[in-house]
Amino acid sequence: MITVLPVEGMPEVHPGDEIADLIAASIALEKGDVVVVTQKIVSKAEGRLEEVADDEGRLRLIERESVRVLRRRDELVISETQQGFVCANAGVDLSNVDDGVAALLPVDSDRSARHIRDALAARTGVGVAVVVSDTFGRPWRRGLVDVALGCAGVAAIVDLRGTEDTRGRTLQATEVAIADELASAAELVMGKDRQVPVAIVRGVDPSWLRESSVHSEIVRPHNEDLFR
Amino acid sequence: MITVLPVEGMPEVHPGDEIADLIAASIALEKGDVVVVTQKIVSKAEGRLEEVADDEGRLRLIERESVRVLRRRDELVISETQQGFVCANAGVDLSNVDDGVAALLPVDSDRSARHIRDALAARTGVGVAVVVSDTFGRPWRRGLVDVALGCAGVAAIVDLRGTEDTRGRTLQATEVAIADELASAAELVMGKDRQVPVAIVRGVDPSWLRESSVHSEIVRPHNEDLFR
Repeated sequence: MITVLPVEGMPEVHPGDEIADLIAASIALEKGDVVVVTQKIVSKAEGRLEEVADDEGRLRLIERESVRVLRRRDELVISETQQGFVCANAGVDLSNVDDGVAALLPVDSDRSARHIRDALAARTGVGVAVVVSDTFGRPWRRGLVDVALGCAGVAAIVDLRGTEDTRGRTLQATEVAIADELASAAELVMGKDRQVPVAIVRGVDPSWLRESSVHSEIVRPHNEDLFR
Repeated sequence: MITVLPVEGMPEVHPGDEIADLIAASIALEKGDVVVVTQKIVSKAEGRLEEVADDEGRLRLIERESVRVLRRRDELVISETQQGFVCANAGVDLSNVDDGVAALLPVDSDRSARHIRDALAARTGVGVAVVVSDTFGRPWRRGLVDVALGCAGVAAIVDLRGTEDTRGRTLQATEVAIADELASAAELVMGKDRQVPVAIVRGVDPSWLRESSVHSEIVRPHNEDLFR
């Protein structure tokens, strides 16, 4: 059984804040918890904020954060970010920040996740894993889902290839993106209209708790990508 | 708080079986539960099985189930199915079925979900929602995640547009694909190597429990799709 707990009562996050302090003050963590933290508060804590005067400034910022534009329609830009993510508007986000300010994606979300994980361990003595999540659209399917931008202490991908199915045959193509599924599960208790930027996923398979990285495990290299 | 419970001890499913009977015999449902059922046992119960003698037969089946091929590399075909899903090999699946047999996607997974939901209500008197899930790859990101093929009694998409963010500004682009996130959350307790084809997601926001359809809400029409 897995439980997904919203972390209620988190204060507004400002540049320089230590997110681990705010989480530790809001909920009692247990060993093996996966702490899912939305990108927005990570970007704020890390000061990844930029002033944008107008739509033109926003577009310049999107272009600066992009290494390549894949599609463009009206105000929507689908591009590949410097971190290798393909998403809308290079992750440049104007919601839940001050007017005239945009939040950018963390420079290295795996490093952000490791920092929060280590700071939580130092403060609480409890060994937890961390996923930094963001809300992405998908081709072919309407609606947004939360996915992992970074992780620490939990597998990004669990490789079930080589294990046997219930008939004893070797399974193929069963690399499951656990970190993305954890981000999606966490989103179910967050909501966009409530002040719940952190959720705990408790009770995950202990074998998933290992060193990992979204960048090295999930971001698909160009040479194996059929859609880039 | 949300809890995700694996339904253990489900027997092997055969054509003609009533999945609702097997679920009702295995777990005590509660009002408002979302019952996530993997496509494989739905396809088996509905007799969506075909003999395939060899690789060539498998390829013919994939082409028959596809309305259009988007990409092809070696043995992998990415195509659009008759149901409008874009996935690998048109969902034709050789794992966890008898040798020489392939499982096809249900003809109408929303209808399958409604059937299971109605049969559960008739047998147990408990009003639950149902999601039929399958495991899909994604462009740009490695690893597979579970998504919804069909749903009944729970929103496929929850539209938070028009609600306000924590600053009182109207949010944009926040249509969340709840049914896909429910499928992903359920997968976390299923695993591919265990006999757990059903999971319960308990404690979802009651406002999500309404009539819906993956086909009408999530499958993206061609004219608004930038990647088809």
